[in-house]
Amino acid sequence: MDRFIRNLRMNGGTGKTSYSFDSSVQERAIYVTKPLIEDAALDVFSKFYACSATLSPSEMMGKSIGIADLGCSSGPNTLLVISYLLNIIYNKCREFDSASPEIVMFLNDLPGNDFNTLFKHLEGFTDELKRTKGDGFGPCFAAGMPGTFYGRLVPRDTLHFVHSSYSLQWLSQVPLGIESCSKGNIYISKSSPPSITEAYFKQFKSDFRSFLTCRSEELVKGGKMVVTLLGRRNADPTSIECCYFWELLALAINDMVSEGMIEEEKLMSFNLPQYMPSNEEVKNEIQCEGSFMINQLEAKFTNIVMSLTKV
Amino acid sequence: MDRFIRNLRMNGGTGKTSYSFDSSVQERAIYVTKPLIEDAALDVFSKFYACSATLSPSEMMGKSIGIADLGCSSGPNTLLVISYLLNIIYNKCREFDSASPEIVMFLNDLPGNDFNTLFKHLEGFTDELKRTKGDGFGPCFAAGMPGTFYGRLVPRDTLHFVHSSYSLQWLSQVPLGIESCSKGNIYISKSSPPSITEAYFKQFKSDFRSFLTCRSEELVKGGKMVVTLLGRRNADPTSIECCYFWELLALAINDMVSEGMIEEEKLMSFNLPQYMPSNEEVKNEIQCEGSFMINQLEAKFTNIVMSLTKV
Repeated sequence: MDRFIRNLRMNGGTGKTSYSFDSSVQERAIYVTKPLIEDAALDVFSKFYACSATLSPSEMMGKSIGIADLGCSSGPNTLLVISYLLNIIYNKCREFDSASPEIVMFLNDLPGNDFNTLFKHLEGFTDELKRTKGDGFGPCFAAGMPGTFYGRLVPRDTLHFVHSSYSLQWLSQVPLGIESCSKGNIYISKSSPPSITEAYFKQFKSDFRSFLTCRSEELVKGGKMVVTLLGRRNADPTSIECCYFWELLALAINDMVSEGMIEEEKLMSFNLPQYMPSNEEVKNEIQCEGSFMINQLEAKFTNIVMSLTKV
Repeated sequence: MDRFIRNLRMNGGTGKTSYSFDSSVQERAIYVTKPLIEDAALDVFSKFYACSATLSPSEMMGKSIGIADLGCSSGPNTLLVISYLLNIIYNKCREFDSASPEIVMFLNDLPGNDFNTLFKHLEGFTDELKRTKGDGFGPCFAAGMPGTFYGRLVPRDTLHFVHSSYSLQWLSQVPLGIESCSKGNIYISKSSPPSITEAYFKQFKSDFRSFLTCRSEELVKGGKMVVTLLGRRNADPTSIECCYFWELLALAINDMVSEGMIEEEKLMSFNLPQYMPSNEEVKNEIQCEGSFMINQLEAKFTNIVMSLTKV
């Protein structure tokens, strides 16, 4: 089971079993949300340049733009989104015939993430940036921020744009007190007592609320956030669309237990720190927390995609 | 020779051959410069709090302090210096009975550095920080900044204090055009023609000048920098104190070449990207560059130690 848990984490490096090599589902999700990311970014950076119109070139150089990818992993997807954002900043810079602001790209993931591989990808990326956009653009600084996004990550009023994809369905921890009632399951299932579902939902609400509050402190007023997470269309959290995969996996693990390949107590003590919320649940939390205006919030297949503005 | 060059780079990880495990010389250098680091930091942070005395607690929380370790490596030494600085900030905070500013710890090294190991060390460090200084201190954010410190690393006017130890003797590159005259040597030696010494010195001047200019853009006015680098006391750059070790190593490698263990052309094409300057050479460059006032600049054993203030 230990090995199983370890394998749930993203594999580092660049080999065939690495996340960096095999993250095509996540890449597709980014392509699907590209228009949303671009719309939000266009709005933010147009306002940034419009507000800076009266600044002298040297004053403009003293301004900086902060963009962040939260749960960035070690793969190339992070740099895909960052490149969309830099293109928009670059084009706005030319449109407004303005000196370039300095840009900080904050790349966040848990401390166990393979930042070494990410930073190696970055070298080629920044070389290409210089080649295509010239020395007059930026400078662009990359900052690896190890830590949980359920806590604060960067100083106040630093960020203009936040992106996060396929990360926020992961909870900060397995909900407390569910071990005794989750026998044989590894997530919410049809056979789970209501206390399990409630404990998972409570943990999601607490974590998502922390995420919103921390980001509201870090984003400038009017700053935007585009977030994609795994979610469900059905109101029922035990519905097949989000539990089926994990129920199948639990069945397989139960078989391995009965064949003596995995110790029973390891299965008993294991539960996934994941929750797939519905649109309504997400919407309620955003409205209760109160720091963000919802520009868009919709279910796309098994994803919930949202674009929010810091008010 | 490839293996030799690889071993010149710091070994990652935490094993017995890792830099993290075996960096006691660097650690001693930090203990020796501790009073200098503390004096400079006390001055900077006293002024920071004195200027902030009229701010309300919420305004104070909106201010942030930037500290940086350049050439931080993956070992525990980096966190030793950071902990000195955080102690001073914490004590000043209590002395002025002030709300805590937010603190960003910028940890820089080349992209090939083992940031993964550094970030693992950081986890225990930040836990200990919370335990000893309480939740009211900070928050403190750690940012891994991969890149060369001969270029810009962070936005303008972000840093209050910069520390760098045993890094600035490494040049950005082997001086160009020396391959043809350095036959059998791997660094400046007694037998080197003057063109070799001049090429090394020219590269050092250009690199050190870039370092100063970049830091002057990143430090706030009055911000400080304490730098230790390998240097020499003798005016002659071919003197025994800085060349002897590399001459011995070159002799050993020449023996290995004559025994067929290393190809001759690999030795011929290899030169160390290092220069050990004298006090005078360092002083001249700082004065010519013009962004820093020298508070202290002295030779300690084979080190040059300096404390500078951004004017």
